[in-house]
Amino acid sequence: MTRKAAIIGGGVIGGGWAARFLLNGWNVSVFDPDPEAERKIGEVLANARAALPALSDVPMPAEGSLRFAKNIDGAVKGADYIQESVSERLDLKHRVFAQIQAASKGVPIGSSTSGFKPSELQQAAADPATIFVAHPFNPVYLLPLAEVVPSAESNPELIERAKDILREIGMFPLHVRKEIDAHIADRFLEAVWREALWLVKDGVATTEEIDEAIRMGFGLRWGQMGLFETYRVAGGEAGMKHFMAQFGPCLQWPWTKLMDVPEFTEELVDLIAGQSDAQSGNYTIRELERIRDSNLIGFMRALKDRNWGAGRVLREHDDRRRAAFHQTVKTGQGAPLVIAHMQVLPGWIDYNGHMTESRYLFAASETSDAFLRLIGADMDYVAGGHSYYTVETHIMHLGEARLGDRLTGSIQILGSDDKRIHAFIRIQRGTETLASLEQMFLHVDMNAGRACPAAADVLARLAPIAEAHQSLPRPDAAGRHVGQGKN
Amino acid sequence: MTRKAAIIGGGVIGGGWAARFLLNGWNVSVFDPDPEAERKIGEVLANARAALPALSDVPMPAEGSLRFAKNIDGAVKGADYIQESVSERLDLKHRVFAQIQAASKGVPIGSSTSGFKPSELQQAAADPATIFVAHPFNPVYLLPLAEVVPSAESNPELIERAKDILREIGMFPLHVRKEIDAHIADRFLEAVWREALWLVKDGVATTEEIDEAIRMGFGLRWGQMGLFETYRVAGGEAGMKHFMAQFGPCLQWPWTKLMDVPEFTEELVDLIAGQSDAQSGNYTIRELERIRDSNLIGFMRALKDRNWGAGRVLREHDDRRRAAFHQTVKTGQGAPLVIAHMQVLPGWIDYNGHMTESRYLFAASETSDAFLRLIGADMDYVAGGHSYYTVETHIMHLGEARLGDRLTGSIQILGSDDKRIHAFIRIQRGTETLASLEQMFLHVDMNAGRACPAAADVLARLAPIAEAHQSLPRPDAAGRHVGQGKN
Repeated sequence: MTRKAAIIGGGVIGGGWAARFLLNGWNVSVFDPDPEAERKIGEVLANARAALPALSDVPMPAEGSLRFAKNIDGAVKGADYIQESVSERLDLKHRVFAQIQAASKGVPIGSSTSGFKPSELQQAAADPATIFVAHPFNPVYLLPLAEVVPSAESNPELIERAKDILREIGMFPLHVRKEIDAHIADRFLEAVWREALWLVKDGVATTEEIDEAIRMGFGLRWGQMGLFETYRVAGGEAGMKHFMAQFGPCLQWPWTKLMDVPEFTEELVDLIAGQSDAQSGNYTIRELERIRDSNLIGFMRALKDRNWGAGRVLREHDDRRRAAFHQTVKTGQGAPLVIAHMQVLPGWIDYNGHMTESRYLFAASETSDAFLRLIGADMDYVAGGHSYYTVETHIMHLGEARLGDRLTGSIQILGSDDKRIHAFIRIQRGTETLASLEQMFLHVDMNAGRACPAAADVLARLAPIAEAHQSLPRPDAAGRHVGQGKN
Repeated sequence: MTRKAAIIGGGVIGGGWAARFLLNGWNVSVFDPDPEAERKIGEVLANARAALPALSDVPMPAEGSLRFAKNIDGAVKGADYIQESVSERLDLKHRVFAQIQAASKGVPIGSSTSGFKPSELQQAAADPATIFVAHPFNPVYLLPLAEVVPSAESNPELIERAKDILREIGMFPLHVRKEIDAHIADRFLEAVWREALWLVKDGVATTEEIDEAIRMGFGLRWGQMGLFETYRVAGGEAGMKHFMAQFGPCLQWPWTKLMDVPEFTEELVDLIAGQSDAQSGNYTIRELERIRDSNLIGFMRALKDRNWGAGRVLREHDDRRRAAFHQTVKTGQGAPLVIAHMQVLPGWIDYNGHMTESRYLFAASETSDAFLRLIGADMDYVAGGHSYYTVETHIMHLGEARLGDRLTGSIQILGSDDKRIHAFIRIQRGTETLASLEQMFLHVDMNAGRACPAAADVLARLAPIAEAHQSLPRPDAAGRHVGQGKN
């Protein structure tokens, strides 16, 4: 059954939460008294729809329904999870929690607060145990981090349930074990922000120079390893102790202005706003959002290819959803066998706006893998030391797949013996063939590294299909070489 | 004529500088009294050779020669650029500069110092005007940032010359206009490091939790936009002033421990080193270096695809080298062009433990894309409405790539006319060909949806290469169809 999330407080952060839940198949009910809330959330959602699917290698679930409630009561009724993202005023948050808890019982209530501790949020609450910090990072629909901070009053079982829900929507819940103002990440941001204000105020560097100093150097490092792992590597074989011994003394040097806080004058605000205009004013905020999102997608896909950091979170999210997806796919029947169903994902699109070339072969692999599973040459069979290897492929590129297209893969067996399968695969959109692939598969003993006959039960499943396919017309493209004239 | 760089002080930083110069075609002479220097620099250079070419879409120039000098005199003789990377002791640096300036005159001398100001480095120098800060970031062979800091004593013309040299080796020289301890970037690193030490000391978070708080959230943001541009976007349409108004008051909150410095006790060092072992100890430093480099390559290639940040630096570097490369392509100089360098990433591996089938075509696409960029059919050309489409492919699977393998892609032009390119691509591991791909590319007018002749300048770049390749032996697999008997 579709579950429901209640989002209290719209805006960029609340909208990001709403988008994550919706795109992961949850129904969402939003309450925000701002008459502009619907438009604002619509804009965040549009960004998220263009971005989040590009991280996925599994078809997205059907989007949940989005409703705007007239009051907190209506929003939280029947909700399985509640996220509060109202302004950073403790009295306001307390009033919101009181209204939520008057209308719902025992449901996890995460707060997006960047500064308050959970014990402060829980003050005077009807049920303090359900209120905790779930602090996300903008853009919420892309960045995986959510700092989850309970207090001593929190219900540990409920916190674990909340963390599972956050994982379900693709996030990385970081359990902060000891409450502290600003949790962890924002303490660093605060430290850097203060130092940056000093540098601008003292005329050492402009906003643009500071941004270049970050993104051309350590910013790239920090997207994949953090502070300590980076320094561990820098310490070399001598290790972290050696690095600390080198770095330690620097702490005594006057390298930071952070001993006090720059006065926040109109003049300083104007100086920074003016430099920021000069730096980035040739882009609108919407353009910058799209550039940022596209860059983050590139980073996160690179990490996904490498199964590292945020990329590992993406893979685990795919694995959970792949299991659910395969339960809904039925193997095709008839001849040729329609055996694979796919959707063209944003990550499959190249700079021409078409499906990138190698994805046609990927689609064919999905098709041949499904066929091999059908005849029993599945992962268990491979684990036993035998497999079919592709030894030769000929591809005809006949049409172009576009974003979102639903594709099917069908397979026709042209010939076979106890070691070989000669197959013709069509990748189609409806009745239109976008690519055809003629392939030769060889059955191998993986340990011996040479061809050998397939197992008897595999051959027994292959034989009737191959025999049935003998009567099918032989495709024109079979036996063709590259550059051959039309028949 | 090949130019020469002198590297004074080996180690990780000096080795990184040496690698950048060598791989960009400079001769390099190193002086370091450490008997281990040759081995250490060899290790950095091996990492760099495996990493830097993966960022390039232009064939790398011939590597320069590497020599180890017996003294500073020998190292700097005839050098066009000198980089000092000795220990962070001012008296030592002064002695090194004195020896350098006794043996060479008027040559730019950059210092890798992370803390000293140029005016401090210049004290008592024979020629203060040639000494400046050129502060790089580890890994020096990959990260583009070099903070260039002159003092009032510096020669502005020499500083501009030095910046041009840094650009030539692919770096981004950030001109720091006002000297200050630790320049710009390290002031931020210092602020974050102090805060992190407090958090570990107080038991709020472990080194691993801190690293996750960085790399799952703001670290990803900072690799592509810096502090101010990120916040500008967060401020939304209301802009930077609005953001400042929101963020400003937080500065008054006690969100940082930075008002004093944690005492650097043995106990704190042990605590951090122990947590770091628990976090990353299952990898050796060499493994972590390779993981880091592979991740950085992924980030930087993503930015290169988007022409943003560090990716723009890579493109400009390619543009400079492309011009130089085209001057070296002459008729009669025939060999398949080795144009793509790749590494088999974890995401490319299938359940057999081998590179998944479609990645061979992906590798070929990387190769043909690099070739098309070389002849000017690049993303700008595509944006203008024209492109080469693959219409047909024949693949021979000849070997298996495994995780971590370094692959090269080479292309041989079998034939071409004004609309077509008939190419033969080899994906190799060393001298072993793992797959060969025969492909036909058709030049299309994307708006009209039909074939048309390529632009004159593209054809002009294609012609001499195609002509040179006429004399190459025709591959056996060219013209082959699937299942054909061996010749």
